[in-house]
Amino acid sequence: MARLIVMYKTPQDKAAFDEHYIEKHIPLAKTLPGLRKYEVSQGPVVTPAGPSSFHLIATLHFDDIASIQRAFSSPQGQAAGADVQGFATGGVEMYIFDNHDV
Amino acid sequence: MARLIVMYKTPQDKAAFDEHYIEKHIPLAKTLPGLRKYEVSQGPVVTPAGPSSFHLIATLHFDDIASIQRAFSSPQGQAAGADVQGFATGGVEMYIFDNHDV
Repeated sequence: MARLIVMYKTPQDKAAFDEHYIEKHIPLAKTLPGLRKYEVSQGPVVTPAGPSSFHLIATLHFDDIASIQRAFSSPQGQAAGADVQGFATGGVEMYIFDNHDV
Repeated sequence: MARLIVMYKTPQDKAAFDEHYIEKHIPLAKTLPGLRKYEVSQGPVVTPAGPSSFHLIATLHFDDIASIQRAFSSPQGQAAGADVQGFATGGVEMYIFDNHDV
C-alpha cells in the first residue's frame, strides 16, 4: 500500500482552517479515485519535545504510487489541489511513498 | 488510535543507514511497550514536485497519546531513542497525534 501524507503548517486562522477542512476539503478529497482510506489528526500535533509547527496531518491510503499519481492528475485531484492552495494559509508539505508492515 | 511518525532526513551514507535500520533499529523499536503496528516506507519518499529531503518515514501505531508517552519513557524507548541518535546522521523529525478515519 502507498501513502500520501499531507502536513499542514499552523494556519493564520485555525478555526477558519478547521471549518473549511471539515466542511469542504474532506468531502472533496474523499472523491479522489483510488482512495482506500483517509485518516486525519485530531487535536494537537506535537513532538517529543513539545509543540510542533504543524496544525493537521492527513494520511491517505492508495494501492500503489501509480494510483496516487492518477489521483493527482484526475479532475478530482486538480480540484482538491486548488482547494488546498486556498485554505492552507500556513503552507503545506506532501510526501508520497510505498509502505509496508515490519 | 494515536500515531508516532518518524521522518528521517537523507543520511550521509544511505546503505549504512538502511543496514542499521533493518538489522538493529526495527528489532529494537518492535519491543516498545504498547506498539500496535509498525510501518516503514519502502523505496524513495517523494513529493508531488519530485524528490524530497527524507530518506525513510516510519509510522508507529499506539492506542493513545499516553501510550506513546509511556513507550518513550520505558527502558526500551530510551534504548530506541539512543539508537536513533547514532544512526540518524541526516537528522530526524518526530510527530505525535491522535488519528481518526474520515
